[in-house]
Amino acid sequence: MSILTRPILEINLKNILDNYNLLKSVAAHSIPAAVVKDDSYGLGAAVVAPMLYEKAGCRNFFVAHAVEGERLVDRLPQAKIFVLQGFGEDSKEHFERCKQMIPVISSPEMFEYWKSFRPDNRKPAIQIETGLNRLGFRERDLAKLSDEDLKEFQLVMSHLACGDEKEHFMNHHQLENFDALKNLYFPDIPGSLSASDGVFLGEHFQCDMVRLGAAMYGINTAPYRKNQMKNVVKIKAPVLEIADLPKGEFVGYSATYRASSDRKIAIISIGYGDGIPRSLSNIGKVYFQARGKLQEGRVIGRMSMDNMICDVTNVDGLEAGDMAFIADDFYTLDDMGRDAGTISYEIMSRVGKNTRYIRKYIED
Amino acid sequence: MSILTRPILEINLKNILDNYNLLKSVAAHSIPAAVVKDDSYGLGAAVVAPMLYEKAGCRNFFVAHAVEGERLVDRLPQAKIFVLQGFGEDSKEHFERCKQMIPVISSPEMFEYWKSFRPDNRKPAIQIETGLNRLGFRERDLAKLSDEDLKEFQLVMSHLACGDEKEHFMNHHQLENFDALKNLYFPDIPGSLSASDGVFLGEHFQCDMVRLGAAMYGINTAPYRKNQMKNVVKIKAPVLEIADLPKGEFVGYSATYRASSDRKIAIISIGYGDGIPRSLSNIGKVYFQARGKLQEGRVIGRMSMDNMICDVTNVDGLEAGDMAFIADDFYTLDDMGRDAGTISYEIMSRVGKNTRYIRKYIED
Repeated sequence: MSILTRPILEINLKNILDNYNLLKSVAAHSIPAAVVKDDSYGLGAAVVAPMLYEKAGCRNFFVAHAVEGERLVDRLPQAKIFVLQGFGEDSKEHFERCKQMIPVISSPEMFEYWKSFRPDNRKPAIQIETGLNRLGFRERDLAKLSDEDLKEFQLVMSHLACGDEKEHFMNHHQLENFDALKNLYFPDIPGSLSASDGVFLGEHFQCDMVRLGAAMYGINTAPYRKNQMKNVVKIKAPVLEIADLPKGEFVGYSATYRASSDRKIAIISIGYGDGIPRSLSNIGKVYFQARGKLQEGRVIGRMSMDNMICDVTNVDGLEAGDMAFIADDFYTLDDMGRDAGTISYEIMSRVGKNTRYIRKYIED
Repeated sequence: MSILTRPILEINLKNILDNYNLLKSVAAHSIPAAVVKDDSYGLGAAVVAPMLYEKAGCRNFFVAHAVEGERLVDRLPQAKIFVLQGFGEDSKEHFERCKQMIPVISSPEMFEYWKSFRPDNRKPAIQIETGLNRLGFRERDLAKLSDEDLKEFQLVMSHLACGDEKEHFMNHHQLENFDALKNLYFPDIPGSLSASDGVFLGEHFQCDMVRLGAAMYGINTAPYRKNQMKNVVKIKAPVLEIADLPKGEFVGYSATYRASSDRKIAIISIGYGDGIPRSLSNIGKVYFQARGKLQEGRVIGRMSMDNMICDVTNVDGLEAGDMAFIADDFYTLDDMGRDAGTISYEIMSRVGKNTRYIRKYIED
């Protein structure tokens, strides 16, 4: 027998590419842009962005921060990189060095600051507010812009609040607002309203450019139906030890679990330090392949930073050294998010940042 | 006026050092060891560990995974680095290259595997199970070890389940188990039962070595009384925009917040992508320094990956470009953990891994 100690994170690049191409075909009349902010939701923008650039011909990318964009420019020589958090004193140097980076200006103050800096004749994008009440020019702000100011921009964008709920009244409310403001103030430049979720709301929502993020990474952004995307993330972790847990004994920090009968437990080498939500304590599910079938265990006690403990009393044939399946096609990060009381986006973003994983990129 | 876009993470190295020295003085008869696993709880082991080595003379360190240890060996030439997850096929190469790394053997299977590999006369540590029911040899496993096997180890350790609850019955239960097993099987080698929390349970719990982690990083591991540790982590993020929110309008994804009266909102450039728990949606508190006083805002709507939205109706004098105080001495990660339904450990571990922060190490 062998013993293993490290968790494994598998990221399927082929499936990211397939998802991108599917989304692109659904929004066939729009320019596809890839959202690679937050290090491609933690999956590694330095790998994902060049892959989309080279294999899918993607030429428009979105990051949140300029510092994220600058890490990519050399690999995306002909692309535009839009920066959602816009422009500020702390990102001047990045915009100076990287002429491909386009700030998304989201307030009159930021616009004034951009104009006072403007390193070349680069035209920024503008974010307008249509109902999310997050970043963006309100109509009263737009009304104050001069004709000259309005010609300063190359793209007008906004963001849906409820695009993952097909029938939500906010969707049409925001679309109407977007169309009205675009027609009034920006009739001659491309518009972008939708991220992945909006792509599935129909052609009108797709406008001139769609920003493909979550769905490309396999997240179901249309949860009112079966996920059409291929799963991208798999997480495995080794069983370090299997032990008997006699009736009456406690498990984990603060002794939140007590065995009401004799149990068998497995200690798995992964914990919240690896980005798995601690809120799965006493709730989460873990899967095992043993005796040729998929079997389910349950997280018991509080999750630790480096380990979780599972009840495997009913898992037949499990041995130390076997792998536990933490996330997979049959139990996705969407499923985990539901069990953990959050969304897969948050988990993906966290998991991807831990350098303790053996990280594997699957390319075919 | 100026605009800023990036969040700032300040890590106070001086306070880590002071906390280490205070803990060391409380456990004056024990060998102090520094726990720098999970990249020093996200705060940067490559900075923290050498600082403790050089300025505090620390010569014993604990990591979770061998891969974490190997990143540190060059900077800690005379130190022992204990590896809590022990030894496995996937860490062979690290133990081969780094003779200072000591695996913590936690099961008979792992011990057999270690013996079949053993690259030199290095003696491992052994973890014994005393009540946490996580990793470790149970008494029945110890009983099977030969006298020769028992002499293989240089340190015997275990871990408290409820050390942060001073009166919890588990503490004395585990101490008795530990003393009994140590006296029976390992009378001649040093023992280590306590992490930070156990240090405050008295001299008997401190044994021969204490493993200083959470409290060193400022976490209150004795929450039954006021924190005696200095705060280590401060997080700030810029206000990108301030806007009016008219009565009846919605905020954020899924429109979970609706304004029952006219409000004023601030959009802050930090989100769950930066490790701030999304569970603070509609709950969290954010602070501002304006008009010379500290004022409180409240997170409204769902937190996004890159932004959070705050109700600042009652914050007087706030302007775009000002900083929001997300965590500080007056609102620590312990406080945030309590509000978010988790513990500061989880937040610290996440926050420290995002490379979008402007990261500042404070040294004096």
